[in-house]
Amino acid sequence: MAVREKAFSIIVDVFKRHGATALDTPAFEMRETLMGKYGEDSKLIYDLADQGGDLCSLRYDLTVPFARYVAMNGLTSFKRYQTAKVYRRDNPSKGQYREFYQCDFDIAGQFEKMGPDFEAIKILTELLDELDIGDYEVKLNHRKLLDGMLALCGVPQEKFRTICSSIDKLDKQTFEQVKKEMVEEKGLTDETADKIGTFVKQRGSPVELLAKLKEEGSEFLTNSEAAIALNELDILFKALAKSECIHRVVFDLSLARGLDYYTGVIYEAVFKGSTQVGSIAAGGRYDNLIGMFGTKQVPAVGISLGIERVFAIMEQLQKDKNQETRATETQVLVSILGDDLSLAAELVSELWAAKIKAEFMVNKRVTKHIDRARGSKIPYMVIVGDQELSKGIVKLKDVVAANDSEVPRSGLLEELRKRLNNGSS
Amino acid sequence: MAVREKAFSIIVDVFKRHGATALDTPAFEMRETLMGKYGEDSKLIYDLADQGGDLCSLRYDLTVPFARYVAMNGLTSFKRYQTAKVYRRDNPSKGQYREFYQCDFDIAGQFEKMGPDFEAIKILTELLDELDIGDYEVKLNHRKLLDGMLALCGVPQEKFRTICSSIDKLDKQTFEQVKKEMVEEKGLTDETADKIGTFVKQRGSPVELLAKLKEEGSEFLTNSEAAIALNELDILFKALAKSECIHRVVFDLSLARGLDYYTGVIYEAVFKGSTQVGSIAAGGRYDNLIGMFGTKQVPAVGISLGIERVFAIMEQLQKDKNQETRATETQVLVSILGDDLSLAAELVSELWAAKIKAEFMVNKRVTKHIDRARGSKIPYMVIVGDQELSKGIVKLKDVVAANDSEVPRSGLLEELRKRLNNGSS
Repeated sequence: MAVREKAFSIIVDVFKRHGATALDTPAFEMRETLMGKYGEDSKLIYDLADQGGDLCSLRYDLTVPFARYVAMNGLTSFKRYQTAKVYRRDNPSKGQYREFYQCDFDIAGQFEKMGPDFEAIKILTELLDELDIGDYEVKLNHRKLLDGMLALCGVPQEKFRTICSSIDKLDKQTFEQVKKEMVEEKGLTDETADKIGTFVKQRGSPVELLAKLKEEGSEFLTNSEAAIALNELDILFKALAKSECIHRVVFDLSLARGLDYYTGVIYEAVFKGSTQVGSIAAGGRYDNLIGMFGTKQVPAVGISLGIERVFAIMEQLQKDKNQETRATETQVLVSILGDDLSLAAELVSELWAAKIKAEFMVNKRVTKHIDRARGSKIPYMVIVGDQELSKGIVKLKDVVAANDSEVPRSGLLEELRKRLNNGSS
Repeated sequence: MAVREKAFSIIVDVFKRHGATALDTPAFEMRETLMGKYGEDSKLIYDLADQGGDLCSLRYDLTVPFARYVAMNGLTSFKRYQTAKVYRRDNPSKGQYREFYQCDFDIAGQFEKMGPDFEAIKILTELLDELDIGDYEVKLNHRKLLDGMLALCGVPQEKFRTICSSIDKLDKQTFEQVKKEMVEEKGLTDETADKIGTFVKQRGSPVELLAKLKEEGSEFLTNSEAAIALNELDILFKALAKSECIHRVVFDLSLARGLDYYTGVIYEAVFKGSTQVGSIAAGGRYDNLIGMFGTKQVPAVGISLGIERVFAIMEQLQKDKNQETRATETQVLVSILGDDLSLAAELVSELWAAKIKAEFMVNKRVTKHIDRARGSKIPYMVIVGDQELSKGIVKLKDVVAANDSEVPRSGLLEELRKRLNNGSS
């Protein structure tokens, strides 16, 4: 939990720096809200039992509840972040759970062209840079460019989405495997599949690859959707360059993203290096989703950070460095040798009132007290037995240095403040 | 959400000061875990649909999941806090919800006699004092004293819990109404009910009422359960007195608490004063609950804070003071007059890198920019149009004071830092 708190604090700082508002939505939504939004994954939605009243399901992500919220409240502009649990009725592989945190940032509304897209990608890089969990790259593509490419290859429009799903598997499968799926299961011709193959191999520096796609005579310029995409990418890449984060971005024509609702720029952050692979964050533009819940079409972009993976990596990094996070932050153990609870109450309450993090223990045996302090890594002990009481002092023990000093009862608070300012934190 | 964040931060500070560890448990538990723990309220539990796999239900409170966690992990000592949503299939009255936050602190384990009880009540007073939401009192009683009292009145043991439920209604009903229930529905004699009536009327200063109950010839001393309770209360009250929070406590023989699992001291914090009535926090000792989930009996005490009511009161207090909380913390709006997103990206990224909270806007019309800054209460604007570009400056506008100054482009960051250190926060 200590690692989680640290990660959340970094993340929330980034979101607030960008003027985002925190939003909290219920864990369950009306079942019909979630229907038809997740394609094949809909079978992973947890339903509540029908005990009378509305039929509800547990949220599957934070994007659909956000879109529902914007539409229901008639908002035309909203920049929000949300960190909350989502639920998937899956058979989770190692390190995955059926209940897990998601961490989303979305901007809904009509703004300057590519402004929100730029900001979402910028935030993605700020998050990953500040979490400091390893080298990464942001793969980026544009749905309209993908659609244009598929049209140029001769894919019929009604197959665009399902072929996108196939292309999306290229990060885990060979082209031969994906081609087999496109031809045998999805009915493309060999020739069409091969042409897709030559396109999706292209990846590289955003500025260079974009220049190549826009060269005179480029097929993409003949397709109106693709031409729009290229123009938008031009504006986006210029902003990312000025913002000094474009070195993180790889323009990758094989990036397709599974979800149906994306309509513009899409991206996915993946770890580089050999051990840590896999997507850590992703997002894109979805201009039609909010309109599905209301009367107004409100364009939107958003990112989702795979915070559970971030936690896992941070924990591993701490282990590697042999840094153990303490479960508690207790600074002082008030140790009363004997059985006088009221004496403990008096002393420890004085520390609490001074905002010192303290626990107490009443026990005749001093070894029990020392075991407790060591076990919880508490740096100081204030020990009081009959001897100390009769002398009007307390014994202050520095547990790590293993030295004791006698402090007058009335001077304890001052002495502790001195030690804690130097010692801890 | 801003009010909530403030409240959470105060609460978590108190818990950490007492050496508590944060714990996170899943929103759903095995259905059998929740069965038989909540008496009549079990009908308010939300069940998940049977989609194959384990039968689950949404958690109803945080106490039972805590007990299940302690037992499952074989813990013998654990001091934890948890702030999380719970779910109740209720018809909520105004200001209540089916999903709401609870905020719990519990101590499980064998410690010095009455130590955890003292600490839980102390924390309750620290929470309510530091949240600063109004005057309150902590009503306190002891289950064993209640049981002893019922035995002395001639109530058969198998009726103790159901008669406790009746007594628990005395804060909302007259004694005549409660007597009717005890006699007509629960089969007590008139005489027994009246004797209960004379006992439960007693309330007052802990020390004085305790002294009275312990006087020579007091009936309570003849009942072994009651005698144990009086001895424990003596230890507790001495600790609370030394801890300087006993003035908050009222010893009230009519406090019974509905839940079955309490076994020792019980308490409930209520607002004083005419407008704000009702319980804001409650808790007590439950020594047998953890044993229901495992092989070991681990004694425990805990408190639960009605955090939703705290939020509501804090919001009302802010309204009364005309203090409006801003939804965002944005300090600067970067306003580009024109259509150059990359210029906005360059400027605003410089501010973000300096950890300044900033948003940007690209629009030809300056009035749009000013409306945006005023609407979001953003204190400063950095305005750049063609004029400013050609002169190598930016216009820095103090939105509240409505004055502008020209700042060299290269000196912007320094100037902003100066203003923000004086101005905000």
